[in-house]
Amino acid sequence: MIKVSVLGYGTVGSGVVEVLTTNKDSIAKKVGQEIEVKHILDLRDFPGDPHEAKVVHDFNQIVNDDEVQIVVETMGGVKPAYDFVKASLEAGKSVCTSNKELVAKHGAELIAIAKAKNINFFFEASVGGGIPIIRPINECVTGDVIEEISGILNGTTNYILSKMASEGAQYADVLKQAQDLGYAERNPEADVEGYDACRKIAILTSLAYGKQVDFEDIYTEGITKISATDIKYAKALGASIKIFGSSKKVGDKIYAKVAPVMIDANHPLYMVNDVFNGIFVKGNMVGDLMFYGSGAGKLPTASAVVGDVVAAAKNLNVNVPIIWDSEKLELADIKEASQRFFVRLSGDKAANEAKVSAAFGNVDVVDAGIDCEYAFITSAVTEGDFAKKAEELGNVVSRIRVDF
Amino acid sequence: MIKVSVLGYGTVGSGVVEVLTTNKDSIAKKVGQEIEVKHILDLRDFPGDPHEAKVVHDFNQIVNDDEVQIVVETMGGVKPAYDFVKASLEAGKSVCTSNKELVAKHGAELIAIAKAKNINFFFEASVGGGIPIIRPINECVTGDVIEEISGILNGTTNYILSKMASEGAQYADVLKQAQDLGYAERNPEADVEGYDACRKIAILTSLAYGKQVDFEDIYTEGITKISATDIKYAKALGASIKIFGSSKKVGDKIYAKVAPVMIDANHPLYMVNDVFNGIFVKGNMVGDLMFYGSGAGKLPTASAVVGDVVAAAKNLNVNVPIIWDSEKLELADIKEASQRFFVRLSGDKAANEAKVSAAFGNVDVVDAGIDCEYAFITSAVTEGDFAKKAEELGNVVSRIRVDF
Repeated sequence: MIKVSVLGYGTVGSGVVEVLTTNKDSIAKKVGQEIEVKHILDLRDFPGDPHEAKVVHDFNQIVNDDEVQIVVETMGGVKPAYDFVKASLEAGKSVCTSNKELVAKHGAELIAIAKAKNINFFFEASVGGGIPIIRPINECVTGDVIEEISGILNGTTNYILSKMASEGAQYADVLKQAQDLGYAERNPEADVEGYDACRKIAILTSLAYGKQVDFEDIYTEGITKISATDIKYAKALGASIKIFGSSKKVGDKIYAKVAPVMIDANHPLYMVNDVFNGIFVKGNMVGDLMFYGSGAGKLPTASAVVGDVVAAAKNLNVNVPIIWDSEKLELADIKEASQRFFVRLSGDKAANEAKVSAAFGNVDVVDAGIDCEYAFITSAVTEGDFAKKAEELGNVVSRIRVDF
Repeated sequence: MIKVSVLGYGTVGSGVVEVLTTNKDSIAKKVGQEIEVKHILDLRDFPGDPHEAKVVHDFNQIVNDDEVQIVVETMGGVKPAYDFVKASLEAGKSVCTSNKELVAKHGAELIAIAKAKNINFFFEASVGGGIPIIRPINECVTGDVIEEISGILNGTTNYILSKMASEGAQYADVLKQAQDLGYAERNPEADVEGYDACRKIAILTSLAYGKQVDFEDIYTEGITKISATDIKYAKALGASIKIFGSSKKVGDKIYAKVAPVMIDANHPLYMVNDVFNGIFVKGNMVGDLMFYGSGAGKLPTASAVVGDVVAAAKNLNVNVPIIWDSEKLELADIKEASQRFFVRLSGDKAANEAKVSAAFGNVDVVDAGIDCEYAFITSAVTEGDFAKKAEELGNVVSRIRVDF
């Protein structure tokens, strides 16, 4: 019998208890013994909850309990999660977490402590919810040099963009719908401004290259400026607009960003809609891979946490190596990254054609039947050059990166 | 320095040597030391090959060499691969293989030997080529009870069906094209009759439920009867025809089969075309997952083998547990499985409507503008009932399972 304590009895934490309870027998078979939840740490009480008697309010009861071998952290946020996780690892308990902020910020340190203690710090649920992506990058695609990771890493924004496309609606209206349905927070900033996706691509990039990527270094642009008109143009192109967290290796340089991007039907992530997530990985040997599933939600996320609990239980005194050093990975300046852009200018063709040609040379003109605009896709230019030229043009209504 | 010997210098074996050579530095970083190919076993010599000096013709040179810690088996077939792999494991060498026949037939036994010897028998490349699927099922989705695995597991047949759809061509013509391009063997039976997919779904089902699934027990139907007219109907339905290897858990029963199936755009595998593979996994907690990539080809398959080599090198004296007992998993009788069918009857509506209604009740009639035929989709019926009724009707031109 292996005893587990769960920190935080919110959506994911209660999901973890539910998965461990519902699938008790099949999990016991895989581990070789039963797994039992001993404590649930939360500030609140849960009268009437079947696990009510396990609720405790003092973390010391858990960290000082030698019987507890695995701690599940599903509180979210860095404080006090970081202190609790670190103390648990130092006390010789493996930790499984769904907390992307914690992992992005302190992953390297916590992995090192787990290694020193010959236990494990696992975080499959921190990126892509229920989708296996951490372990595939860490343990499967290891024969490859990873050339690109591009992910639809946030369900809320993918839902909003999908609905804008299917209903032709404006961003603000769909955001309100999503909030009413509980798919978006009342304060949606972390999702819609790309901050959530930013932490997730920081984690994936750190794992891919084995060094610390500071999420603060990643250029991050949200979806708040995407309009119904942009989506009309995308449709005219047979494309869809997604927000990607992505990192690309070009020579020795690694570029990372979070930004909306137009992709066409040839891209493996084109059909990833609604609250689903999808992660595209390109290796120099394996070529294109794609992983798809529920990127959020109580049970899918809990499934990933429990998969980690099973792994921790099967490796109680064996550290499964994760290469993610504290040495910083210096990202290349995004201004030097090369990229095609879709651009909308105010004013008609006559007013714009000559100056666009002077700025960008040959472009692909895009006609979506919108009056008094001139829209086109550039050849590949650097982000820096593009920004300068766009400013010189002076009449850019919107611009979106193009990945085809 | 870890020494590896490669058995079989064909497509995959030479790919493994190429991946280990090309990505030597990044692999050494992940393992913590260099990996070097010491021997390449093949019947042939390879004059002029950069690795010519490593070629040996006697397996004893490898199995008796204490310096060799990892053996890569990329010969294919059961004989003599089984003897070589078993002897390697018994000599305390971990084995990584791409050989689906070997794994489907002897997986349980070889896993048990590796466990007893505290080494590893890995086989990520045996299913889905470069797609990580063995490790995700074995190490990630372990908190779930797996309810369904459905995979496009054979690149040759997916290429043929994709081309038939995009060109409106007949099976025989596309098969010939595929043979000319090297995508299909001169004797294409193993692919087009579904035998290859059958071994792969046997492996995935064994892993999902931890017991031996004998591939001989799996109902297997190939693509040789699929016609251009069937595909016209599929298009009229907004569907595509794929060949799935699938297993489904219904209550306590597990059904497995290989057969062509119609899926629509809502299915995560709908967009998996050409030689790509895709594997859909449904867990009772995580819901729908999908894994996509190159299911065959020299470097993608070698990438998966080398991922296993890295894992074996990181776990030299640690057995990574794989639950796959030799105890046989009794599959449920496919005749009891419930299924919708697309059916084409000779003769027009007037000749068929009443007897179809008598046999199947309400059906969805399908009109693809084909003369002198009556086509429809049944409600869910058991396979056994359907077969009986189809025989009674007496004028079935074709029938294809429907998964929507």
